[in-house]
Amino acid sequence: MVYIIVVYDMQADRTRLMLNFLRRYLTHVQNSVFEGEVTEGDLETIRNHVQTTLKPDESTIIYRVGSEKYVDRTVVGDDPTDESRFL
Amino acid sequence: MVYIIVVYDMQADRTRLMLNFLRRYLTHVQNSVFEGEVTEGDLETIRNHVQTTLKPDESTIIYRVGSEKYVDRTVVGDDPTDESRFL
Repeated sequence: MVYIIVVYDMQADRTRLMLNFLRRYLTHVQNSVFEGEVTEGDLETIRNHVQTTLKPDESTIIYRVGSEKYVDRTVVGDDPTDESRFL
Repeated sequence: MVYIIVVYDMQADRTRLMLNFLRRYLTHVQNSVFEGEVTEGDLETIRNHVQTTLKPDESTIIYRVGSEKYVDRTVVGDDPTDESRFL
């Protein structure tokens, strides 16, 4: 298993595509940020899906860390882990 | 020194405030994402500044990793490290 952070930059009217897909694998932590532990296979699936979903001028960064314990997350401002904001 | 990734979610017309501030310390890697190595003091300065800049419903996540070597970054789509896009 690997821990990943996914940050996407897409046209506002197309973000739902990414949102709905990434929700199946990861936790939604901010407007365009997802995090979670996945298998190497899932990571491959995510990478491929993102690649085919993006249009020119859109991008996604996938950060991969060995484990959640190597990352310390501080949230400043409104708590973005409150999923109700995104419904 | 610590390696940090900063992702902010702000009202579109206010992002320039964060952009101009974070540029002094970090590298702009995507629309609302910055990364880089900073001192503990800089991290404290960044955290405080972000705290006072944000309005309700805005948020910023600061990921702190021990070192850049613990993070593997994959960019899918348009290369967001091309700074010319943001000028």
